[in-house]
Amino acid sequence: MISLEWRDGVFRFLDQTKLPHQEVYVETDDYRIVGEAIRKLEIRGAPAIGVAAAFGLVLAAHAKHIESVRALNEEFYAAMNFLSQTRPTAVNLFLALERMRRTLDQNARADLSNLRRILLAEAKAIQQEDIDACMRIGEFGSSLITLPSSILTHCNTGALATAGTGTAQSVITTAAKQGNVVRVFADETRPLFQGARLTAWELMKAGIDVTLITDGTAGLLMQKREVDLVIVGADRIAANGDTANKIGTYVLAVLARQHGVPFYVAAPTTTIDVNTRSGKNIPIEERSPRDVTHIGDMRIAAPGVSVFAPAFDVTPNDFITAIVTEVGVLRPPFLEAIAALKKGEPNSPPKDQIPSRQRVL
Amino acid sequence: MISLEWRDGVFRFLDQTKLPHQEVYVETDDYRIVGEAIRKLEIRGAPAIGVAAAFGLVLAAHAKHIESVRALNEEFYAAMNFLSQTRPTAVNLFLALERMRRTLDQNARADLSNLRRILLAEAKAIQQEDIDACMRIGEFGSSLITLPSSILTHCNTGALATAGTGTAQSVITTAAKQGNVVRVFADETRPLFQGARLTAWELMKAGIDVTLITDGTAGLLMQKREVDLVIVGADRIAANGDTANKIGTYVLAVLARQHGVPFYVAAPTTTIDVNTRSGKNIPIEERSPRDVTHIGDMRIAAPGVSVFAPAFDVTPNDFITAIVTEVGVLRPPFLEAIAALKKGEPNSPPKDQIPSRQRVL
Repeated sequence: MISLEWRDGVFRFLDQTKLPHQEVYVETDDYRIVGEAIRKLEIRGAPAIGVAAAFGLVLAAHAKHIESVRALNEEFYAAMNFLSQTRPTAVNLFLALERMRRTLDQNARADLSNLRRILLAEAKAIQQEDIDACMRIGEFGSSLITLPSSILTHCNTGALATAGTGTAQSVITTAAKQGNVVRVFADETRPLFQGARLTAWELMKAGIDVTLITDGTAGLLMQKREVDLVIVGADRIAANGDTANKIGTYVLAVLARQHGVPFYVAAPTTTIDVNTRSGKNIPIEERSPRDVTHIGDMRIAAPGVSVFAPAFDVTPNDFITAIVTEVGVLRPPFLEAIAALKKGEPNSPPKDQIPSRQRVL
Repeated sequence: MISLEWRDGVFRFLDQTKLPHQEVYVETDDYRIVGEAIRKLEIRGAPAIGVAAAFGLVLAAHAKHIESVRALNEEFYAAMNFLSQTRPTAVNLFLALERMRRTLDQNARADLSNLRRILLAEAKAIQQEDIDACMRIGEFGSSLITLPSSILTHCNTGALATAGTGTAQSVITTAAKQGNVVRVFADETRPLFQGARLTAWELMKAGIDVTLITDGTAGLLMQKREVDLVIVGADRIAANGDTANKIGTYVLAVLARQHGVPFYVAAPTTTIDVNTRSGKNIPIEERSPRDVTHIGDMRIAAPGVSVFAPAFDVTPNDFITAIVTEVGVLRPPFLEAIAALKKGEPNSPPKDQIPSRQRVL
């Protein structure tokens, strides 16, 4: 399944808010539509947001009314400003925008048509790198799962959340191919039901045995020793390994510690932001109260009730067993592991971290 | 608000599945309607279920076709059988049925009209005892809250769940009258949204500052030190204090321990079942997958997905700071505290346990 793609001058994306009931693809040549889609969660998942934002800038650069490099620059920065204000937590968004801006800067002397070509190539590179990262995350992560296991996951981290096969979900599908997934428990993930709508749908399509649970059911499952490991994605990982992810993730981390269950985070290195020192410095987006009080147009909650609806929580690094990236599996202490990783060349893992079930375990 | 009442030969109840949108009262003289209402959660909350079941037996005894004590007995036992199969976890149901059966037994020589009168009086006594218990639970529980506090609660434990002012919610409303409730965080309580629909509605009506959250948000709130104490109700408390309550309760208990937050259970002594040795012996009801996959008639989840939908989980006794009953506040070790309580006279607390903020603290 391809949830995001560039096709003949047009950006095409699957509207995730309509899943699993309808598979509606939107095609647009307007970056504002892309920005609105990110804001409304029609496109969601930290890596997918980054890729979409990059293509948003490409659309701005290709706007039909542009006839000069100067006009392209103006439109580009207007689009960058617009896109940067869609969602605050996922660092992939800002990283992709900044990378595109740097590409524009570094090619200041190119003519209009070349500049458009270069920007498109850069966005495609960001997309391809995410596809590759997903695959490698799946390989590294599945090396941690050496026995047939029951896995608990939260929110959606699959093809919909990335340009590729996903982060935590890529680990699950790769481990499943190796015969090591007995069952996946998918948290429904209130308020927006990404688990019920997206993860369950994707895993069923992949032929994996998936059982949907409400978010409050994880405790009982762990008591009954039904969960061998927890794996989740990330929206931003701080320099010390503190991880912002969908609200409810921290609850799973506390339960996992209580029950001696490994708790893994899977994310591309683009989700690690060394400029964010710790979880305390990660801005946490608040969503509309309506997300909690209503399901679609149906009101559930008592009219007029106050709501607190953070989209994410932060899991402190000491609750995390390991962080799976496309360049290897990071182990505590994460501050040191992340510093070492960021010094190295991205996308070229040290030899001793190349996937090897024997070696990595 | 009166959610259950006997009125001129008819049992009248508020259909909780329609709240907060519609306040629909159902009047019936058919015990089967009462049983179905319990099964469908139109009547819910362990104490309320007990009271409703008792009146269900009164309805059976008053059935118009009955012309002899023998016919009354037949109808009574048929009704008892029917009502006992509605929901398995709440012990109040079985206790109320058994108490009514004993009353019938003990009055084997009464004539038809006297027997009907006696059974009605017994059901009314069960109801009145619950009303009194709620009030005393509020007094004992509020004695634990001596400073203005932010309180987290789960599911619904108010007037709707009992014949009186509630269990945990009676503690909250009593503490609020004493000026010691800053704010209540109400878990929405998936899958049936009792927190969003019922608790938020009842607390707003009572003029208490209530903030609705999804069940996964409690962890973030505790990290931010926004929760001073957790208080919940119970569907069954075992002899050792292990407590079955709405799914997700155990998650709060683990979070509370992690963050050093007191975790209280409030329930009438009728919810304590000394014949159940520990939580392992409490049968846990599973609800329909549809509760999770649909909201009303609207499908949320991917079609065909497997669902695990336990209605309750069990919080082991060592996670519980205290159990608030109508005869006093029980402290660990609960096995001893409960044994001592069950030896004493119910409803006549030892003098040193009479509500007194100074004494109980």
